[in-house]
Amino acid sequence: MDALTTRAPKQDRSRATRRKLLEAAVSCLAERGWSGSTVSAVAERAGVTRGAAQHHFPTREDLFTAAIEHVAEEWLDAVRERARALPRDGESRTRAVVDMLVGVYTGPLFRAALHLWVAAADEEQLRPRVNALEARIGREAHRLAVEFLDADESVEGVRESVQATLDMARGLGLANLLSDDSARRAGIVRQWSRILDTVIHARPEQPPGS
Amino acid sequence: MDALTTRAPKQDRSRATRRKLLEAAVSCLAERGWSGSTVSAVAERAGVTRGAAQHHFPTREDLFTAAIEHVAEEWLDAVRERARALPRDGESRTRAVVDMLVGVYTGPLFRAALHLWVAAADEEQLRPRVNALEARIGREAHRLAVEFLDADESVEGVRESVQATLDMARGLGLANLLSDDSARRAGIVRQWSRILDTVIHARPEQPPGS
Repeated sequence: MDALTTRAPKQDRSRATRRKLLEAAVSCLAERGWSGSTVSAVAERAGVTRGAAQHHFPTREDLFTAAIEHVAEEWLDAVRERARALPRDGESRTRAVVDMLVGVYTGPLFRAALHLWVAAADEEQLRPRVNALEARIGREAHRLAVEFLDADESVEGVRESVQATLDMARGLGLANLLSDDSARRAGIVRQWSRILDTVIHARPEQPPGS
Repeated sequence: MDALTTRAPKQDRSRATRRKLLEAAVSCLAERGWSGSTVSAVAERAGVTRGAAQHHFPTREDLFTAAIEHVAEEWLDAVRERARALPRDGESRTRAVVDMLVGVYTGPLFRAALHLWVAAADEEQLRPRVNALEARIGREAHRLAVEFLDADESVEGVRESVQATLDMARGLGLANLLSDDSARRAGIVRQWSRILDTVIHARPEQPPGS
């Protein structure tokens, strides 16, 4: 009984520490880049000792890939939640989905991930892990986009149009890195949504009520 | 007379040294990232003394912004040259232009520029210079895209579609950073070229022979 009651709060504390480290790692990456993001810098930001940080994450690579994965998971959950409030169908739904996707790629998660991606291009130990992580997040983002857009990928060109949407969103994220690009971006999102909606919904009408 | 004849070769040598430094700077950035790109590393790669490098470029920021600008200028010249061999009009021309633009953003210049852009997000001294450089290159790439696509920006949605093409190309460049993305990319380029061609050429037909 005693062992059980002391173990539970200890596990909670451990989980809370882990979470604090992961969130500190992402904000550190977003603000200071890979070269400014060491395990010590993250531990300090999280208010945790360096030893405790290393207990959870033995290497710098462990810490930062886990951090991006954690925040990406949280983002995917938030997106699934928000998707319930999307307009039911038609062009306004397509526009809302494109807006949501572009919003992700212009936010702090993408900024942090971008630092990790670019660092991975030069760091042998980091590259395979970040590559695998990028592929996993990319697949899941694509799957969600298809679902939210109610896109039928068996129709020619639909799959590539959804992929192009995510690539464009990534490009807009990059364009937003050094300066506020929101005015230009709004026009592009509007036009892209119109085009995408035409491509996705250029299929035989379903019978009313189906 | 003597002063003139000795000055000319000296100026040539100086220009050649400057050029070697700029090209070494870009390949250094592309391969080793910002943290591995110091003036000394570039001087060594160019086979030039550190003193000679600093004579041309007093600071690291001077060297790397000049390097990206130099290579971007060379690229713009090469694109103008290649554009003469593009198909005259129709969907095949649109496809060739999109291919050319995407080719740039998936090549070594973009890779080097990406390292500089991301470094600039965290480095105060670098940010305003890279920001101005990015804006200048972006404007020129847009202008060339409009010209090569024979796009009429007074038609609603055309300007944003051309911008979206460049943003998509940038996103495809990012997707190609850690692994070879060429198979996926080919399908996206094909589909987007079809769409873009429809958007651009959805205007009243011109009388034959005009």
